[in-house]
Amino acid sequence: MTAPLSLADLNACPASVFAAQLADVFEHAPWVAAQAAAQRPFATADALHTAMLAIVGALPEDARVAVFCGHPELAGPAARTGAMTPDSIREQGALALDRLPHEEEAWWDRLNAAYRTRFGFPFILCARHYTVAAMRQVFAQRLGNSREAEIAATLREIGLITRYRLAARIADHGLADLEGRLTTHVLDTSRGQPAQGLRLALHQVDSALPCSTGAALIETVTDSHGQTGAPLISGQPLRIGRYELRFHVGDYFRSIGAVDGPWPFLDVVPIVFSIDEPTGDYHVPLTITPWAYATYRGQ
Amino acid sequence: MTAPLSLADLNACPASVFAAQLADVFEHAPWVAAQAAAQRPFATADALHTAMLAIVGALPEDARVAVFCGHPELAGPAARTGAMTPDSIREQGALALDRLPHEEEAWWDRLNAAYRTRFGFPFILCARHYTVAAMRQVFAQRLGNSREAEIAATLREIGLITRYRLAARIADHGLADLEGRLTTHVLDTSRGQPAQGLRLALHQVDSALPCSTGAALIETVTDSHGQTGAPLISGQPLRIGRYELRFHVGDYFRSIGAVDGPWPFLDVVPIVFSIDEPTGDYHVPLTITPWAYATYRGQ
Amino acid sequence: MTAPLSLADLNACPASVFAAQLADVFEHAPWVAAQAAAQRPFATADALHTAMLAIVGALPEDARVAVFCGHPELAGPAARTGAMTPDSIREQGALALDRLPHEEEAWWDRLNAAYRTRFGFPFILCARHYTVAAMRQVFAQRLGNSREAEIAATLREIGLITRYRLAARIADHGLADLEGRLTTHVLDTSRGQPAQGLRLALHQVDSALPCSTGAALIETVTDSHGQTGAPLISGQPLRIGRYELRFHVGDYFRSIGAVDGPWPFLDVVPIVFSIDEPTGDYHVPLTITPWAYATYRGQ
Amino acid sequence: MTAPLSLADLNACPASVFAAQLADVFEHAPWVAAQAAAQRPFATADALHTAMLAIVGALPEDARVAVFCGHPELAGPAARTGAMTPDSIREQGALALDRLPHEEEAWWDRLNAAYRTRFGFPFILCARHYTVAAMRQVFAQRLGNSREAEIAATLREIGLITRYRLAARIADHGLADLEGRLTTHVLDTSRGQPAQGLRLALHQVDSALPCSTGAALIETVTDSHGQTGAPLISGQPLRIGRYELRFHVGDYFRSIGAVDGPWPFLDVVPIVFSIDEPTGDYHVPLTITPWAYATYRGQ
Repeated sequence: MTAPLSLADLNACPASVFAAQLADVFEHAPWVAAQAAAQRPFATADALHTAMLAIVGALPEDARVAVFCGHPELAGPAARTGAMTPDSIREQGALALDRLPHEEEAWWDRLNAAYRTRFGFPFILCARHYTVAAMRQVFAQRLGNSREAEIAATLREIGLITRYRLAARIADHGLADLEGRLTTHVLDTSRGQPAQGLRLALHQVDSALPCSTGAALIETVTDSHGQTGAPLISGQPLRIGRYELRFHVGDYFRSIGAVDGPWPFLDVVPIVFSIDEPTGDYHVPLTITPWAYATYRGQ
Repeated sequence: MTAPLSLADLNACPASVFAAQLADVFEHAPWVAAQAAAQRPFATADALHTAMLAIVGALPEDARVAVFCGHPELAGPAARTGAMTPDSIREQGALALDRLPHEEEAWWDRLNAAYRTRFGFPFILCARHYTVAAMRQVFAQRLGNSREAEIAATLREIGLITRYRLAARIADHGLADLEGRLTTHVLDTSRGQPAQGLRLALHQVDSALPCSTGAALIETVTDSHGQTGAPLISGQPLRIGRYELRFHVGDYFRSIGAVDGPWPFLDVVPIVFSIDEPTGDYHVPLTITPWAYATYRGQ
Repeated sequence: MTAPLSLADLNACPASVFAAQLADVFEHAPWVAAQAAAQRPFATADALHTAMLAIVGALPEDARVAVFCGHPELAGPAARTGAMTPDSIREQGALALDRLPHEEEAWWDRLNAAYRTRFGFPFILCARHYTVAAMRQVFAQRLGNSREAEIAATLREIGLITRYRLAARIADHGLADLEGRLTTHVLDTSRGQPAQGLRLALHQVDSALPCSTGAALIETVTDSHGQTGAPLISGQPLRIGRYELRFHVGDYFRSIGAVDGPWPFLDVVPIVFSIDEPTGDYHVPLTITPWAYATYRGQ
Repeated sequence: MTAPLSLADLNACPASVFAAQLADVFEHAPWVAAQAAAQRPFATADALHTAMLAIVGALPEDARVAVFCGHPELAGPAARTGAMTPDSIREQGALALDRLPHEEEAWWDRLNAAYRTRFGFPFILCARHYTVAAMRQVFAQRLGNSREAEIAATLREIGLITRYRLAARIADHGLADLEGRLTTHVLDTSRGQPAQGLRLALHQVDSALPCSTGAALIETVTDSHGQTGAPLISGQPLRIGRYELRFHVGDYFRSIGAVDGPWPFLDVVPIVFSIDEPTGDYHVPLTITPWAYATYRGQ
C-alpha cells in the first residue's frame, strides 16, 4: 500500500491520484473512489467516508449486491490460499486460516454456501471486531435474517471495514479512533493494599469450556499499584467474544506467607467474561483475600 | 463381607468369631484382629480401633514394614487386574484404574517403583480422602520424605483406612463420622433476593487447566432460597483436591429479562477452589448481578 | 380483656357472648360484632374477620366515617392522658406518648387537626407496623391524598388493626401470623470462617442523622457460626422505618490480634437500612476483613 | 510573617537576617536559629532542619525541657485568649478554641495540669496531624508514658512542627511534602457502570456516635467516572482520627428509577473509617446496588 496522503493533499491532487490512493477502500470497486473524487473538497475524512458510503448506498439493490460480491468469503477458499487483497488478508488474520482444523473448514464452507444461496452475496463482517467464536455466533444468527435486514447489516459492516481502510490511507485522518480498552486492578483486601507482584494472564475462550485451553494473549505481573502498567488491551478495537483472566492468587499469598500447602482454598482464580462493545472501556478489577474474591465491570 | 456385628456381640462372642469378623481390617494381617481379641472387652469401637493400631505400632520396625507390605500399590498391577481384596478395590475406586491412560499408568508405575526402592514398602494412603490429582501431588511430595517420616505417615494413613473398614464391620459403631460437607447459596444482589432457578454444577478439576474438562459430579438448580436443597456433598469425607462450581448466571439473568444478546458480561461463572480438609464444612456462596459477583469460604 | 374463646365456642355460644367477646374489635363500635353474630357459623377466623370488615365496608360513606371517628387520634390528647381503650393504648405504645417533646406534640396536633379538617375523620393506621419516623412520614404523605384514597386506606388500616385484635380474642385462631424476621451473620473473610464473639447492636433510627442517637433495641454477640442464635427480630411484625446495625468490628479484630492501636481503619461499622415490609424476611449479613466489608439484603 | 527567602539567600545573607527569618521556627527560642546560622551553608532545607533539631537535641535535659516550656499548652488559657504566636494560633486552629464547651475546657485544663505536673513541661504535639478526638486520645495515652519516652515523643513532635514552620519561611524549600490523600469512587454494579451524579459528603466524627453530628468538611457529586474530580483531601497532611463518608445512594437510585417509595432498603449509606497515617494514600471506594454495597481501603 502506498504511503498515506493528507486530507489536504487528497483534496488538492489530481482526481486520478485521489482515485488511485483510495482505489482499494471498497473491495474490487475502485470506481467508488473515482466517483467520490468529483465531490471534493472534503472538510474531514469522516465526510469523505460518509460520501463514499452514500455512493454505494444510493445504488439500486442489484448494483449494491454486486459491490458486496466483490468481497471474499470469510475463511473461504480464497482466504485459505491467500488469494485475497492485502487488506482482506489483514482483516481475516484472526481466523488463522492456514491452520483451520478440517471440521472447522467444513463448518465455514457450509455456512458460506448457505448464506450465499439464501441472499445471493457473501457474508461480510468487520472481522477486526470479532473473535472467531463470536464470528461463528453472528454468522449463524445473521443467516436467519430477512434479506432486507442483511443488506442493511452488510452495508454497516462495509462501513466499518472501509473506515479502517481509509484511516490507513490518510495521514492525520482525525477519524475518532475505533478503540476499546481492557484494564484490571488487584486489591489485597486482607491487608488493605494493592496486590503487588501477582501474576495474571488474559486468554480468549473459544472452546465450550468456561476457560481457555489455548495460549495467553498477554501475561504480566501487577505493579505496586496492583495494576499492569499499560492496559491489557488498548489502541485497537476489542474483539467481541469471551475472555478469561487468570489470576495467580495462590502464588501471591504464598509469596507473602499468608497461605501454604499444596491446596490453598484459592489458587488460580479464573474470571470469565464477555466483551460485546469493540470501543468499550472494560475495567475488570479483583479484590482478594486467601478466602474470598470479588469482581465487577467498571469503566 | 459378612454382616456387621454390634460391639456388644464382638465383646461377647468367641475369639474366633471376633477374629474372623475383623480379619480384613488390616490388609493381609488377620493376626492383628486375633491379638486384639485378647484385649476384650472394649468400651467403644474407638478403643478397639486404637488397640489394633497400637498392636501394629508396637511392632519392631521390620515387622511393621511387613504389615505395610501387605497393602497393594495404588494404581499398581494388582489394582489394574482387580487382584485385590474387596476393601482395597472399593478404596481405590476413585482411580478408575481400568481406564487409566497409558501415560498415567507409566507415571504410577514409576513412582510406585521409586517409592518402594527408597523405603522398602508400598506407598499407602487413605484413598477416600483424595482426588486423583491430590493423590499424585502427595505421592510425589511424600517420596521425598525421610524414612522415619514416611513410616509415621504410613501408620497414620493405615489408621484412617482401618477406621473405615472397622466402621463397615461394626453395627452402631458410634465412631464419629469422618464426614465433610460442601454447600452453596446464590444471592441476586441486583434484586435483593435469592437467585431461584439458577443452574449450577460441581466438577472435580484434575487437569492443568483452571477448569474441569470432565463430567459434572452433581448438576442441580437453586430453589426459592437460592440453595440446593440437599448439600452438594455430605455424608462422606470430602476428597482433597481442586473443584469447580459452574454457575449459569447468564441464563438466569436472561430468564428474568435482565440481560439479552449472545455476549452478556457474565455467562457461565466458574468458581475454582480447593478442599484440604476431608471433614471440613465448606460453604461457597455466590452473590451476583449481571455485572459483578463475589464469593468466599464460609462454614 | 377476657380470656380468648375458641372459634368453635364463638360459633356455638349465645350471640350475646359472641358480641361481648368481640365488642372492642372495632373501636367504639360493638354493633359490628353484634351484627356479625348473625352470620355464624364461621369456618375460620379469617372468614369472621372478613365478614366484620364487610359489614363496615358495606356502610354508606357517612356511616363508615362515623366508625372511623370512633378511633382516637395518634399521639392526640386522649393518647397523652391515657384516655383510650386498652387496645389503643397498646397499639400506640411505640409513640412513647408520655415522653413526647413539646415540639413533637405540636407537630402531631398540627397534622391531626389538618387531617381531620380535610377529611372529617381522624388519621388511622396500624401503629404496630410503623416506627415513629415512618408514622410521621406516612401521615404527612397521606394528608395529601384524595378523600376517596384516604377512605380506602383507612379501611385497610382498620382491617389490619382489627385482625390483631381478633387474634388476641380467639384461641388457636389459625390466622396466618403477621410476622417478619430480621437476622444477620458475620463472616471473617480474612480467615475464611465465621466471626465469633463479635459484638453487635440493632438500633432504630428516628433522627435526621444516618445513625441512631438512642439506646439499642438489641445487643448481642455472634456465636461460633457468626450468627446471633435467635433472630434479631421475629415473632412480630417488623416496624416500617430505618434501622442501624452496629458491628464492633475493630474490637473483634483486636481480640484476634489482627489490628492494634487506637485508630484501626474499621472500628464500629454501621449498616443503616430500611424495612418496608412488616412481614418481610430480612437477612443483613456482613463480610469483614480489617480493611473491607460488604453487606446485602438476603432473604 | 515576612516573605519566604530562598535557601540560596539564606545561605548568603548576613547571619542576622538568617536569624531573624527563622527566629520563630522554634517557639520562643530564637537562639536556635542564631546558632544554626553559624553552620551555613546548608545544601538543602532538610539539612538545615536537621541541624536546628540537633542543636536542641544536643542540649542537656534541663535546657531541652526549657525549650519545651516555650510552647503554649494545647487549648490552654493562652490559646483561648489568643495570646500565642501567630504560628501557634494557626496550628491550634482545629481546636476551635473560642468555641470550646465548658466541660471541654475543663478536660483540657485537667490534662494539661496533670501532664505538666508529671513531666514538668507542656504537652506538645503537631496539631496539624490530629483531629480533636485524636488529640484527646493521644494526650490521655501519652500522659501515662515514662519521662524518657515523653521527652523523645516531644522532640519528634517539635521536629514535625518546626518542619512546617520552616517550609513556610523558605521559598522552593524542596522539603518532601507532608501530604496525604483521600479519594473515593462509586460504582453502580447493578448496571456495570460508574454511579454518576451521586451526592456524597465527608465528615469528621468526634462524637461517641458512629456517625458525625456536625457539618460536612466537603460535599460533592460524582462525575461520569463515578469520581469526585479532585481528591476529597489532598495537598495537606490527613488528620488522624475518625471520618464518615455519607453516600446518598437512595437518591441516586431514585434518580434512575431503580427504587421508589420513602423506605428503600439503602438510603444514606454511611462509611465510617479511621485515618492513622497523615501522609497516607486512602482510597475508599463504594460499589452499590439498591440492595447491597461493599467498600475497602485501597491505595
